[in-house]
Amino acid sequence: MEKSVLNAHSLIFTISCPDQSGIVYAVTGLLTQVGANITQSQEYRDPRQNRFYIRLQADVPGGRLTIEAAFAALAARFEMDYTISDASPMRTIIMCSKDPHCLTDLLAKQREGRVPIDVVAVVSNHETLCPHADFYGVPFIHIPVTKDTKADAEAQLLKLVDDCDAELVVLARYMQILSDDVCQALAGRIINIHHSFLPSFKGARPYAQAHARGVKLIGATAHYVTADLDEGPIIEQDVARVSHAQDVPELQAMGAEVERQVLYRAVRWHAEHRVLHDGLRTVVFE
Amino acid sequence: MEKSVLNAHSLIFTISCPDQSGIVYAVTGLLTQVGANITQSQEYRDPRQNRFYIRLQADVPGGRLTIEAAFAALAARFEMDYTISDASPMRTIIMCSKDPHCLTDLLAKQREGRVPIDVVAVVSNHETLCPHADFYGVPFIHIPVTKDTKADAEAQLLKLVDDCDAELVVLARYMQILSDDVCQALAGRIINIHHSFLPSFKGARPYAQAHARGVKLIGATAHYVTADLDEGPIIEQDVARVSHAQDVPELQAMGAEVERQVLYRAVRWHAEHRVLHDGLRTVVFE
Amino acid sequence: MEKSVLNAHSLIFTISCPDQSGIVYAVTGLLTQVGANITQSQEYRDPRQNRFYIRLQADVPGGRLTIEAAFAALAARFEMDYTISDASPMRTIIMCSKDPHCLTDLLAKQREGRVPIDVVAVVSNHETLCPHADFYGVPFIHIPVTKDTKADAEAQLLKLVDDCDAELVVLARYMQILSDDVCQALAGRIINIHHSFLPSFKGARPYAQAHARGVKLIGATAHYVTADLDEGPIIEQDVARVSHAQDVPELQAMGAEVERQVLYRAVRWHAEHRVLHDGLRTVVFE
Amino acid sequence: MEKSVLNAHSLIFTISCPDQSGIVYAVTGLLTQVGANITQSQEYRDPRQNRFYIRLQADVPGGRLTIEAAFAALAARFEMDYTISDASPMRTIIMCSKDPHCLTDLLAKQREGRVPIDVVAVVSNHETLCPHADFYGVPFIHIPVTKDTKADAEAQLLKLVDDCDAELVVLARYMQILSDDVCQALAGRIINIHHSFLPSFKGARPYAQAHARGVKLIGATAHYVTADLDEGPIIEQDVARVSHAQDVPELQAMGAEVERQVLYRAVRWHAEHRVLHDGLRTVVFE
Repeated sequence: MEKSVLNAHSLIFTISCPDQSGIVYAVTGLLTQVGANITQSQEYRDPRQNRFYIRLQADVPGGRLTIEAAFAALAARFEMDYTISDASPMRTIIMCSKDPHCLTDLLAKQREGRVPIDVVAVVSNHETLCPHADFYGVPFIHIPVTKDTKADAEAQLLKLVDDCDAELVVLARYMQILSDDVCQALAGRIINIHHSFLPSFKGARPYAQAHARGVKLIGATAHYVTADLDEGPIIEQDVARVSHAQDVPELQAMGAEVERQVLYRAVRWHAEHRVLHDGLRTVVFE
Repeated sequence: MEKSVLNAHSLIFTISCPDQSGIVYAVTGLLTQVGANITQSQEYRDPRQNRFYIRLQADVPGGRLTIEAAFAALAARFEMDYTISDASPMRTIIMCSKDPHCLTDLLAKQREGRVPIDVVAVVSNHETLCPHADFYGVPFIHIPVTKDTKADAEAQLLKLVDDCDAELVVLARYMQILSDDVCQALAGRIINIHHSFLPSFKGARPYAQAHARGVKLIGATAHYVTADLDEGPIIEQDVARVSHAQDVPELQAMGAEVERQVLYRAVRWHAEHRVLHDGLRTVVFE
Repeated sequence: MEKSVLNAHSLIFTISCPDQSGIVYAVTGLLTQVGANITQSQEYRDPRQNRFYIRLQADVPGGRLTIEAAFAALAARFEMDYTISDASPMRTIIMCSKDPHCLTDLLAKQREGRVPIDVVAVVSNHETLCPHADFYGVPFIHIPVTKDTKADAEAQLLKLVDDCDAELVVLARYMQILSDDVCQALAGRIINIHHSFLPSFKGARPYAQAHARGVKLIGATAHYVTADLDEGPIIEQDVARVSHAQDVPELQAMGAEVERQVLYRAVRWHAEHRVLHDGLRTVVFE
Repeated sequence: MEKSVLNAHSLIFTISCPDQSGIVYAVTGLLTQVGANITQSQEYRDPRQNRFYIRLQADVPGGRLTIEAAFAALAARFEMDYTISDASPMRTIIMCSKDPHCLTDLLAKQREGRVPIDVVAVVSNHETLCPHADFYGVPFIHIPVTKDTKADAEAQLLKLVDDCDAELVVLARYMQILSDDVCQALAGRIINIHHSFLPSFKGARPYAQAHARGVKLIGATAHYVTADLDEGPIIEQDVARVSHAQDVPELQAMGAEVERQVLYRAVRWHAEHRVLHDGLRTVVFE
């Protein structure tokens, strides 16, 4: 786990900026000046957009305060979008409806120390999964949603995000569509999981459609949520092999397995600050 | 290889029919009567449509003639769609344009004895790949296609299929759309390969679209050709993992690898009589 | 899920016997006589050993009693090893030590209805995982093992298997080696999961060895337990891709994910009576 | 393809050295001074050995001569192992015996422009594959090997490597064991492919052993050749799924497919200078 290489003095820098000569030279120069030891570093240049991306992990003896101001000045000079994060777990709200598989997977892995998140609340429009949250000692907050109460429910959600200082919201099979306002308020820090097929299927009962079409693969996609439903930047995808012999419930069971895995990887990479934005694309430094 | 278990007396039976009690009892009874030894047998029942599918491979001492008439009677009784095939390689025409990867893969594997096809002709609307056909000693037939000559070209193709007694036509990156008439004339014995993505992309330059969208998987689908372009029954699918770091030409190269593999498996299974039709679905007895 | 096609009258037959003409004819004849409707059927012939394997799922209107005696007679005639099972969940004991990932995965999936087992007890040589069993309402039985108490501990385990009428024992990262006597007493109904690498590594700290060797894949194998440690018949295997960049804890985390998946599939297939024995090999009718 | 981002002024730098502050700062500083534009850069730090690895691709306006001397001085200061390469295809000798699948795969992909190698000779201890080399216009050199002529044959091989200025030797199913002297003479520039199983099998007829053991996966490993047979640094591995139903020839056919793919990726990555050595491990900058 990432944990093994992070310590109290570890900082993670993510940077994207217009590409030009001297960026790495300047950043590593600054780190060298404060006596930092770079422990991980991954880069990507996007020639289409002439943009440069880097993730650095460094032990900075004096901690964040010794470098923050100087870094801000350097960032301004290179027009950087950047973050500086420490190794503490990411404060996370998980939203769910009735399907337990993605929720319990994340809660179990948090407890096992396999994902650096701190789940501060489980939010659901149903009460079904309350016992699962209880078991893991996480507050369960029931926010029912009807057509009439949707605005209120969303206001309640956004207030909760604020109150909890939540840095990440995970839609773990949350079966409500969020309004554009919520999507925008949480832009870049809200992740969804949905099934994926080749070809894709629109409309209701996608597994039944996939079965009728005789697909040989079923998959899942984890992505950032944007106002454009199911079309935000992709973080991770995977598939499982199926055959004619599996019926619709079996396809759903196999799909659930893929969803767990894909959402887990997406959340872990996000919480480890491994996912940078490149317009509609993501740069994932696995 | 399949070859290893087939011999001069081997017959392959594929059957689909309305499900009812006694089908297997009747078929195996008939085989028992003529002294046949069943060497492989795979079944599938589709409860949605109450339909039964079976593929049997059997050593029939007296060969096809000893069983054909009795089998036809039995088939009538159970309203069977059925085929009886021997172990000889399937006479095949491969159609291509300029991309060599699928064509050379099939020709090389035929020579290596890894696919039971006998490629009787390579047909192309370009002369580019003639040397590849030559190397493998397969007649190369150049049938140029323009808007004006398309009808003639297709007539020439269908005549060639007849003249060669071709049992299978493989579109190995053949970049022309066939008319509905050709699709219908070759229904169930013409296979195509195309790229597949999650989500899917319509229109030109799909790899550029997939790159712009930042997909993490690229794939390929092999399917029977029907009048509904790229929408015929799926035989096989697979994907490869990609990342932000691959540019469009690299995605195309990886896609080509997946295409080869998927088309090879689809052609092999078809030539081994492992693919049965279930409406828009296929039953593949791998 | 399998559940969807099983009902009160469903029976599952698994048969292996010396291959000869007329087996399927006889079995389906018997089923036809009692008015049974075959809903699934899969076969395999092993030409090396001239042995025949079949799994049949059938709706038998009168239930097991209407067919048991006649089937026994038929089985004697064909020298069959056979089982007749109904659709009830398989009574299962899970054994574990301190690692929760395999245990919680199976318990969660039982609750979700994704695996037809009824976990009657969790047995561990440590108390660490007691809360997990509690959450799922499964009795947790602490059987500590020291060199001196090993014989007693194993006697206690075998008594528990008897008292619970357990049909299956799953070693879900149980870190004790069982004696040959226990292995023999539970032969064919005890499943283990262990990590697997290419090449394989003997001795302590296998992930550290795999890391030092720079493997690009790590995997897991689920197998029946025999007196020959880690060498019993394989049920399922899978791998995950790794790179130079992952350290030992990260490899362990990825290995844990593969272990969960592989053990889950092995247990599910076993509980659905899909795994038949073929000497050291298994025949898995997925 | 890599080709798309390389041009006449492109240089690839691979560097490994003891880790310390200031390495990237110094290297990028030097590149900045000569007006170079870095187009790709990937790094890895191995905390076990406190060693740093980097691959840089840069457009250097004045070409190699403008930077070589200064780089050598910098390399001395940081105790670097390093290479500077341009974008020209790597001069390669392919060695084979009778199996064509790996040889034809590489030759076909060279022609398609999918791997930056220039195959200057095909060497074989048999004449079987001469026509394949002919088709691709590559000189075929028959060097028979018997116990008595082995020393002569190897001397002939090493002379050929010299005469051709070969930078890489690929053992594409070459079924002779090379002496330690040859392994050492070609250290770091000779790649082998072999089958891999979980568990691994020693001795003759590994596919028959794997079949008897009932493995569910078969794989292949590409690695650098060292005196320790089949145990050199691993470059790439992959597996394919198999079942009880596949017989030994079928397993071999599926294994051949995996071997092709794995060897192709290993050769491509090596020829693109993406593989660095880290003791017994490799660092692969895919």
